[in-house]
Amino acid sequence: MVTSLIEMRPEAPRDTGHDDVLARLADICNMRGIDGTPSRLGSLLGCVEDDMRVIDAALEIVSEGGSRELPVEKSVRHLLRLKGKRLRPMCVALAARLGTGFSDAAREIAVSAELVHAATLLHDDVVDLGDKRRGEPTARMIYGNAASIFGGDWLLVEALRRIHGAGVPGVMNHVLAVLDEMLGAESLQLACRGRFDPSLSVYMRVVEGKTASLFRWALASGGRAGGLDDDGCRALGTYGDRLGVAFQVVDDLLDVAGDATALGKNVYADLREGKMTYPLLVALEREPQLLPTVRAACEAEDDAHLQAAGAVVAETLARTGAIEEARAFATRLSTQAVQSLAGLRKCIAREALEHTALELVGRGK
Amino acid sequence: MVTSLIEMRPEAPRDTGHDDVLARLADICNMRGIDGTPSRLGSLLGCVEDDMRVIDAALEIVSEGGSRELPVEKSVRHLLRLKGKRLRPMCVALAARLGTGFSDAAREIAVSAELVHAATLLHDDVVDLGDKRRGEPTARMIYGNAASIFGGDWLLVEALRRIHGAGVPGVMNHVLAVLDEMLGAESLQLACRGRFDPSLSVYMRVVEGKTASLFRWALASGGRAGGLDDDGCRALGTYGDRLGVAFQVVDDLLDVAGDATALGKNVYADLREGKMTYPLLVALEREPQLLPTVRAACEAEDDAHLQAAGAVVAETLARTGAIEEARAFATRLSTQAVQSLAGLRKCIAREALEHTALELVGRGK
Repeated sequence: MVTSLIEMRPEAPRDTGHDDVLARLADICNMRGIDGTPSRLGSLLGCVEDDMRVIDAALEIVSEGGSRELPVEKSVRHLLRLKGKRLRPMCVALAARLGTGFSDAAREIAVSAELVHAATLLHDDVVDLGDKRRGEPTARMIYGNAASIFGGDWLLVEALRRIHGAGVPGVMNHVLAVLDEMLGAESLQLACRGRFDPSLSVYMRVVEGKTASLFRWALASGGRAGGLDDDGCRALGTYGDRLGVAFQVVDDLLDVAGDATALGKNVYADLREGKMTYPLLVALEREPQLLPTVRAACEAEDDAHLQAAGAVVAETLARTGAIEEARAFATRLSTQAVQSLAGLRKCIAREALEHTALELVGRGK
Repeated sequence: MVTSLIEMRPEAPRDTGHDDVLARLADICNMRGIDGTPSRLGSLLGCVEDDMRVIDAALEIVSEGGSRELPVEKSVRHLLRLKGKRLRPMCVALAARLGTGFSDAAREIAVSAELVHAATLLHDDVVDLGDKRRGEPTARMIYGNAASIFGGDWLLVEALRRIHGAGVPGVMNHVLAVLDEMLGAESLQLACRGRFDPSLSVYMRVVEGKTASLFRWALASGGRAGGLDDDGCRALGTYGDRLGVAFQVVDDLLDVAGDATALGKNVYADLREGKMTYPLLVALEREPQLLPTVRAACEAEDDAHLQAAGAVVAETLARTGAIEEARAFATRLSTQAVQSLAGLRKCIAREALEHTALELVGRGK
């Protein structure tokens, strides 16, 4: 059911004959479909293909900035060149196209959405001691922690300069509130590090703060740049919020959806990182006696104990129906996202947003 | 000549019978004078004593914020409670009083000036692996690097929210440009770490970016909040810029002004940190053959070599007149700061700013 999402991973094979922008859109939406013909979403996203090229060019200019010799600049460039899916800028462009279109202000907001996201990645990698990002060594592994700390600071300031310069009413205020929310979530997650106290409410607060809030801002601000009214922007914000949570739950599912061997292996990796995933939280809710096994796995110092615990957890995930419950939750979120757009005008951009939410959970046609 | 500045150090003895605000003002300006009677600056600063209490109370509320249990909140509180001299907020208050007075907007700008400064300290301590700050363990030593990184991010966002909320035209734009400048200076300093390539131009770029730019913003924005026109704000900005550089040069001098034993000891500490101070740069300009000794000291792995090099450097600093040259430079900066205020209306606040610049270099009466 979520197999189409496997294509979202950076290491997913790409049609190298394709243009880079199209290749990434294909990654997002499994554009070529199961039988190799373009999916509906693939053709719908054509409406922002030019916008995405403009955004990419602007991000390239950011990464080319400065003397290009200082470690901070190199860190920023390294991260920005590990092109992600750029889903947030795409959301801004689609939202703007629901209104009067993709203006200069919308472009600045789209670029800023990616820069804020990039800033959090640089700081997160230092905090989590991350060594890999999008299949490459993290910036901190090459240029050091200090360059990643100041690089993240710089990206944040650059994003805020662009948002302020865009001059769209309410957008600056909103992004500052979102940043506050994001840091609150980081703070909460940090406080929970090193112990495994399963809590769906903490999970939701972290996901809403760290992931959903920036999607909400991207959609609402894109709409605002496109001249939509308060109701329209609020509807888009709700879409972004639901999409953001769904995105995280689907990401959790990617680790546990596959054959039995891969399942045990990924669960084992999650446990080693002490990662709280939605399916695991559901399994623990349904079978609380699993907790000591999970805790022992998080604290295990040797691989043998970890692997044994990983196998037990994987079996429990399957037996308790936790994976299906997580899929059902992602599907409900995707439905809510689509429903929130009901009052907006019918157009290709709206249909593209609807299909993005549907294909995220494997319901695209 | 700079002995009055020795009083600025946090470890300087305080009259514990004094109110806290007054005690800190005394730290700033050697308020009680050499003979124990209040100095002119001491009485002049009375005009912002109430404002400083309001600012302190607002900062206390910031440090009390949140659940008070998360490591990020604890890091922020720890740093804010290590009360510094709060020179930047004082500058905002004085600048506002040169106009229509200390309004709510001026208060928000003053608080933000301190929060931005605090944000840079939290990140700097992580980058420099600092273990002491204002005589206490740094926040990162108690709550970890991660809490200091996110704590710094949060302080920056909180400052920007207040600046945006204050709604004073031009002030948000200016602070974002200043943050860009500050990070450029951090970036440059980071690139120079680990090797000692003496360069007065690099020193000036780092000091102007890291220190002077925020003082410039504090003064110009305080003036703007007080309704001053462009010329008035520009004049105050120039004052802030000159005061900021003077402040750093005087800080460098504090390490080398004292008796011969202390001189050797402080130089030794500076060398161990690879710190580029103004007097040392002058000494190297006048006696380039000192460079190998300085480099060897920076790279020395045992204390005996370091101490020997420290003694040679201290002797050269004294013999070449580098200390006098640094004092003369600080004095010129202080004079320029005072002169920049010439076009502003005569009042206690202006006189207080003039005397602050003069007493900084030991020229107060």
